[in-house]
Amino acid sequence: MFHDFKLMDDRPIYIQLKDYLKKMITNGHLLEDQKLPSTRELSALLSLSRNTVLTAYADLEQEGLIYAVKGKGNFVSKVATHKAPSIHLDWKEKINNNTLLADQLDLMKHGVHWKKGMIAFNSIAPDEKLFDVENFKKAFLTRMAIEGDIVLNYGYAKGYKPLIEALLHYMELKGVDVSNKDILITNGFTEGLDILLSSLGQKRGHILSENPTHHTALKLFRLHGYEIHGIDMCEDGIDIPRLETALSTKTFDLAYFIPSYHNPTGIVTSSEKRMALMKLFSHYHIPIIEDGFNEELRFSGSHLPPLATFAGPGNNVIYISSFSKILFPGLRIGWILADKDLIYYLESIKRARTIHSSTLDQAILYQYLHDGYFEKYLKKAKSVYKKKYELALESCQRYLPYKRMTGDGGLHLFIELKNNLNARTVLESCYRKGVVFSPGDVFYTDGKGQNTFRLGFSRLKEEDIVNGIKTIGDTIRNEFGG
Amino acid sequence: MFHDFKLMDDRPIYIQLKDYLKKMITNGHLLEDQKLPSTRELSALLSLSRNTVLTAYADLEQEGLIYAVKGKGNFVSKVATHKAPSIHLDWKEKINNNTLLADQLDLMKHGVHWKKGMIAFNSIAPDEKLFDVENFKKAFLTRMAIEGDIVLNYGYAKGYKPLIEALLHYMELKGVDVSNKDILITNGFTEGLDILLSSLGQKRGHILSENPTHHTALKLFRLHGYEIHGIDMCEDGIDIPRLETALSTKTFDLAYFIPSYHNPTGIVTSSEKRMALMKLFSHYHIPIIEDGFNEELRFSGSHLPPLATFAGPGNNVIYISSFSKILFPGLRIGWILADKDLIYYLESIKRARTIHSSTLDQAILYQYLHDGYFEKYLKKAKSVYKKKYELALESCQRYLPYKRMTGDGGLHLFIELKNNLNARTVLESCYRKGVVFSPGDVFYTDGKGQNTFRLGFSRLKEEDIVNGIKTIGDTIRNEFGG
Repeated sequence: MFHDFKLMDDRPIYIQLKDYLKKMITNGHLLEDQKLPSTRELSALLSLSRNTVLTAYADLEQEGLIYAVKGKGNFVSKVATHKAPSIHLDWKEKINNNTLLADQLDLMKHGVHWKKGMIAFNSIAPDEKLFDVENFKKAFLTRMAIEGDIVLNYGYAKGYKPLIEALLHYMELKGVDVSNKDILITNGFTEGLDILLSSLGQKRGHILSENPTHHTALKLFRLHGYEIHGIDMCEDGIDIPRLETALSTKTFDLAYFIPSYHNPTGIVTSSEKRMALMKLFSHYHIPIIEDGFNEELRFSGSHLPPLATFAGPGNNVIYISSFSKILFPGLRIGWILADKDLIYYLESIKRARTIHSSTLDQAILYQYLHDGYFEKYLKKAKSVYKKKYELALESCQRYLPYKRMTGDGGLHLFIELKNNLNARTVLESCYRKGVVFSPGDVFYTDGKGQNTFRLGFSRLKEEDIVNGIKTIGDTIRNEFGG
Repeated sequence: MFHDFKLMDDRPIYIQLKDYLKKMITNGHLLEDQKLPSTRELSALLSLSRNTVLTAYADLEQEGLIYAVKGKGNFVSKVATHKAPSIHLDWKEKINNNTLLADQLDLMKHGVHWKKGMIAFNSIAPDEKLFDVENFKKAFLTRMAIEGDIVLNYGYAKGYKPLIEALLHYMELKGVDVSNKDILITNGFTEGLDILLSSLGQKRGHILSENPTHHTALKLFRLHGYEIHGIDMCEDGIDIPRLETALSTKTFDLAYFIPSYHNPTGIVTSSEKRMALMKLFSHYHIPIIEDGFNEELRFSGSHLPPLATFAGPGNNVIYISSFSKILFPGLRIGWILADKDLIYYLESIKRARTIHSSTLDQAILYQYLHDGYFEKYLKKAKSVYKKKYELALESCQRYLPYKRMTGDGGLHLFIELKNNLNARTVLESCYRKGVVFSPGDVFYTDGKGQNTFRLGFSRLKEEDIVNGIKTIGDTIRNEFGG
C-alpha cells in the first residue's frame, strides 16, 4: 500500500500527497477507522520530508477526511462511499431543436479542419506575435495596485464604470451623439448580439442584411428564428436600389450591417452610401444593428464615421463592437452602445445570464486604453497588417484566376471564382497540398456563394501568404483549367 | 479657438490633444480644408511641448483626419459630418415579455438598496479584504511568462484545457466518477445554469426544488418557462416523505438541489439524505442539477461527497459550480460537469452565445489552483468566516427573537420570525437605523416566507455583525413586541 504514489508534476508536494490519500479515502480504498502510517513511517516509505506528510495529514484532518487520536495516531473518518443505483439517461433525446441547430451550425465542430504546419487562411484572428504582453502586464499591475481587491469582487451587470466612461468618450470621438445613449459591456460582439436578439420582439421576425455577411451573426439570427433577407453588395457597399425595393415591398423588424472591412467581402461602405442607407432606414423607421467590426483597422483613406454618427441624436442604431479582432480576443470584452431605455432592459438579461463580464478583464482593458498603450499597439498592428494586406492583394492579382476580388483593407480578402468553379472542390485539392481557406458559402443568406472563398492572412508569415496563394492559383489552373 | 483645451486626466498628453482636435473635426467645428495652427504656434498657444503637438498631428494624419501639404502646413480632411433625419423609436414597445419579466425579477434594480455606512447583511459575496492579491499577481505573471500570447488570443468554447483537466481532477477527489463525463467552462454558475436550461427539452417544463431556494436559479427557471414545485426543508435537508409524494403524483423534467450551505437556509443535507434522495431520483429517472455552491466552506464535521458522487457511473447528475462565492467573483469562471454527450451540445450553445469564457481568467485561475495558492487561501478564509459564523450564530441566539434559525456554516444564516411577523416591515424600521438584510420571500417558490430573512455576514466587521443583529433584535422587541 502507498507504493503507487508518484509525484505527477510541479505542484506543491504536500498537496500531491494529500490528493493521493484523499482519492484513496473518497474511493473507499482506505476504510473507515483504518489507521494511517505514522508521519515518520510514511515519510520514510515515500522518501518525502516529514513536514510534507505532517502538512498533508493536517489538511486532511481539517477537511474532515481523517481524525487524530492522541497517542494513537491518525485514522480514516467516516466518508460516504456507497453509490445509488446508477442510471443512464439518453441526453441527445432531451436536447431541444434549437440546440441541435446550434450544433449543426457550429463551424468549429463541422467546418474545415487543418493540421499543424499547413498554411491556414481560415483565421482572421489577430496575430498573437503582435501582442505587447509587456504593456498588458503593466496595465494589469497598475490596476491591481489601484484597486486589486475591488476588481476581483463582484461588479455591475452594465459593466466596469471607468471602462464604460472611456468607451462613451471613445464613441464620441467618432462623432457619435452619446446623449440619451448608454453602454452595456458584454463578452465580446457575439454576446452583445445574442442579448439584443433575445430581448427584442417575438420570434420569427424578418431581418435585412448584406449578402454575404458574418456567419456568426447569421447563426444567431437563425437560432433566434429570424428570416434573413440578404441584399447583394457592390464595390462600395450594399446595392441601394435593391435595398429600396426590398424596403418598399416588405416589412422588416431589423437590419444588420458591417460598414467597415465587411466580413467576408472586406468592402468598406463609402461615406455617401452610409448617408443614403441611413436616410432610407430613417424613412422606414427600422432599427439598425451596426457591427463595428475592425473599424479601427483603417490602412489608408480618410476617416469614415460609423452609421451611429449619421444617426445624430436619433436612437435607431444599435452599435455593437469589441476590440477582439485586433486586440486580445482572449479577453472577451465587447460593448453595445444604444438608446438608454434599451440598455436598461438589456442590462437585466445580461444580469440574469452571466451576472456581469469579468471585472478583471474590463479593468485591465480600461487601464490599457487609458495609458495610451492601445494607440501605440494599433500603430504597430496597422503597419504589420497593412504589409500583409498589400502582399496578399498583389499575390492574388499575380497568381489567382478570379472573377472578382474584394477587400479594402483589414485582415482578409474575398474571392469569387470564374465559371462557377466550386470553392470546396478547390479546397479539397489545396488541402492535400497543405493550404486551407474558408469556403464562402457559409457567409451567404441564401445558400449561394459556392464559387467564393475568404482568405484571412492576419496570422500568416509573409512568405506563407505568397506561397499559399500561389498554391491555390496553381491548383485552380492545373486541375480546374480556371 | 483652441483656448478651451484643458488637460483632463493623467492620460498621455499627446492623446488628449489628439482627442480634442479629433472631436472638433468629427463634430464639424473644424471645417474641411481648414488650416490648423503650425506645431510651433499650437505648442506655444497651449504651452505644450512641440513634440506633443507633432505626435498628435502625426496620429491625426495617420487616422485620415488631417493632411499635410509640404511647405504649407496641416489641413482638415474631408470628414462626413452631415446627419440623416434623426428618428426616435419606442424601445420599451419593442422589448419582448421575457425581457420585461427579467427586469421585473431583477433584484439589483428593484431590491433593497442601502447607503454607504449602513450595516448590510444583504451580501453573501466574499470579503475582498481576504483576497491574497499578491499570489494572484504571481499566478498571473507566471502564466503570462509561460504563454502570454496564447492566453490573450482566441481559446476554445469548452474552456482552457489545463483548467478543464485540473477541475476534472478536483471533482475526482470528491469521489466523483468522471469517466464518460466532461466539463464546460462557463461565466460562473449563472451562465452554466442558463446554458443548460436553454438546451434542454421544450419550454414550460416542470422542475422540482427545495423551498426556499437560490433566487437567481428561481429567476432563470421562470425566464425559461418552468413551473417550479418547491418541497419544504427539515433541519437536515429536503423533506423526503413530501418529496416521495410529489414524485409519485406528478411527472417532473428536472430537479435542482443545493446540498451544502443551502441558499438561503444554510442547511447542509446529511449524507443519509443525499443517498435517499439519489435513490429516489434513480428510481424515477429524473435528472438532477446539483449546485456546488459553497461546498468548499466546510467549517467542521466530516467530509460530505456531492450528489454527483452518489450517482457513481450514472449520468443523471449535472453538477454546476464556481469558486466565485469564496474566490474572486470578479473573474466569472464556473463549470458544468456532466455526461459527455450533454456537454457536446452545451458547447455549441456556449460558442453561439459568447465564443468562450475569458482565456486570461481561466489561465490565471488554473495557475492559482496549480501552485497551491487556493489551498492556502481557503484555510485562511475558512478560519475568518468560521469566526464570523460563530459570532453571528451566538448574536442571533442572544439578541434575536425567532421561531427558527438555520445555518450549518457558510456565509449566512436564515431566520424565521415568530407570529408571522413580516420581515419587510421589520426591514423598514431597521433601514432607518442603518441596518439592512435580505427579505426571505424572494427565495420562495410559492410566495410564502414573508416572515423570513437571510443574514449574510461574509463582508461585515465582527463588531458590525454583533451590533447589526442587536439592532434587528431590539427593533423586533421594541416595535413589534416580537
